[in-house]
Amino acid sequence: MAAPKLGEFERIARFFAPLAAPEGLGLLDDVAIIPGPPGEQYVLKTDAIVEGVHFRSEDPADQVAQKLLRVNLSDLAGKGAVPVGYLLTTALPRECDEAWLERFAEGLARDQMEFGIGLLGGDSVATTGPVTLSVAAVGRVRAGEAVLRKGARPGDAVFVSGTLGDGALGLSALRGELPALTETQRDFLADRYRLPRPRLQLGRRLIGTARAMMDISAGLIADLGHICEASGVGAVVEAARLPLSPAARAAIAADAARLGAALAGGDDYELLFTASAAAAAGIAAIARETAVPVTAIGRIERGKGVRVVDEQGAQIGMTDAGYRHF
Amino acid sequence: MAAPKLGEFERIARFFAPLAAPEGLGLLDDVAIIPGPPGEQYVLKTDAIVEGVHFRSEDPADQVAQKLLRVNLSDLAGKGAVPVGYLLTTALPRECDEAWLERFAEGLARDQMEFGIGLLGGDSVATTGPVTLSVAAVGRVRAGEAVLRKGARPGDAVFVSGTLGDGALGLSALRGELPALTETQRDFLADRYRLPRPRLQLGRRLIGTARAMMDISAGLIADLGHICEASGVGAVVEAARLPLSPAARAAIAADAARLGAALAGGDDYELLFTASAAAAAGIAAIARETAVPVTAIGRIERGKGVRVVDEQGAQIGMTDAGYRHF
Repeated sequence: MAAPKLGEFERIARFFAPLAAPEGLGLLDDVAIIPGPPGEQYVLKTDAIVEGVHFRSEDPADQVAQKLLRVNLSDLAGKGAVPVGYLLTTALPRECDEAWLERFAEGLARDQMEFGIGLLGGDSVATTGPVTLSVAAVGRVRAGEAVLRKGARPGDAVFVSGTLGDGALGLSALRGELPALTETQRDFLADRYRLPRPRLQLGRRLIGTARAMMDISAGLIADLGHICEASGVGAVVEAARLPLSPAARAAIAADAARLGAALAGGDDYELLFTASAAAAAGIAAIARETAVPVTAIGRIERGKGVRVVDEQGAQIGMTDAGYRHF
Repeated sequence: MAAPKLGEFERIARFFAPLAAPEGLGLLDDVAIIPGPPGEQYVLKTDAIVEGVHFRSEDPADQVAQKLLRVNLSDLAGKGAVPVGYLLTTALPRECDEAWLERFAEGLARDQMEFGIGLLGGDSVATTGPVTLSVAAVGRVRAGEAVLRKGARPGDAVFVSGTLGDGALGLSALRGELPALTETQRDFLADRYRLPRPRLQLGRRLIGTARAMMDISAGLIADLGHICEASGVGAVVEAARLPLSPAARAAIAADAARLGAALAGGDDYELLFTASAAAAAGIAAIARETAVPVTAIGRIERGKGVRVVDEQGAQIGMTDAGYRHF
């Protein structure tokens, strides 16, 4: 969710990181970890979505509910955690009709079944502004096994699950900005925008293999930047290796600047992780077993920051129009 | 927070209660309880506040932060829990200035010190609407010791801490609706509106004594109704025994309908609990030791619902203008 959150990371570093409890991991990891029953820890995460920013007013309420849950479950997946339940806060216009709420609750119920979680509690307030929905998700891991952002080391390979850019391009499709695509392609992308697939099984299986991991929500470059910052390393991404869906390929073929959707569009909800180069075969096996493609897209290096390079090794940079060659 | 939440309880019962996990206590208790480290449980609670509803745009940002934390800590107090930490979600206008955020963070820091808690994590999103702030608070109790809403029994006495109605009258004072009061009285009430005092020590000390407990946020009648519903009992409240501050007394003397602020105004953040009549002496001792006044205001009876009676035992009912004799 890059665009609406510009300045978020600076705000967090300046105003909120100094307030972090030890369990809050310095706010460098986007989750908190607290002691659980013997041998276990809880992973806590909160994520909010706002009408007009993270979903559209006309989106079906059941899918809004599912997106709300899934963006949070995706964070748990990024730590290798098993979801337990969630707290829900809704800020709704007073005139919010029962049909909307009913469908919203249907969406929650569907995903509770799908992911084996339950509602733990919540709050419901009235607002004069856009619908604002927030979830605090609770997951569990065996003690010490959560995969944090801070474990990346120079020489690690960088991997992502699934395909990148579909969510951001899906929003473009819904806005009528991709007329050159087929209806099937547009529908595929719109579905990827509306309904993230949290990679919970894959995340769990990567425990012991991934050295650093998180889900991609702000965009590949920003989130890989988070791993680099937390790990004290740099990274290089090879643009030609980014996994793209056929629909995303078609969109980028029509306008090369749309590669920016894969690099920085956000709303991907795929896993981003690093592992030793020697782990590649094991990761390929895990990818097969969980039926989620995993692609190596670059490597961790000494230094800081994230570089993107083309097939000739020349650096690609961001312009106002998106990612382009310098 | 009675007025802005009309219909909230019906919405919860109809749409959300069916989604509750076992740990969510059927959403009848407003908190969730999950297993913790050996011998402990976590109490989870989320509460949101909205600009223009729960605080005023002109309220100092540090006090807004403190109110946000304290309404959540008050819920933990109502279970006898010790606060551990919190997740924070902020939905702020894009143009929200740094001075506001800095002061907001100062308020959080002040109350983190005051209550011994830390920030565990959070999310920060942009909104085109009013500032919307949500906290998910984590507390802990010894396993099995949380005081729930469901333990009230016929014959129990009903107690409240502190004084009632100050918060709701404080909002009236801030709106210029209490011109007959002295400036000192108005300031006292406004402070009670802006800065709840979560009764954490008292709540903890009432473990083993209180049979049912919660904090008052929606208003005495509504919240006592929640205890009655969860416990399968009714209750009677003697209006003449409601503990009132001198300022609230003055406001009610000027307009008797303002008794409604104490009965149903909400924003009290005092503890409401029931205990056996024999526990009164022990409760008086706890009140002295924690320096928080506790007052018996009624009793639990068979049946359902909450009745309010005057000194002659005649029932008092609510009209559009507030609570009045039938």
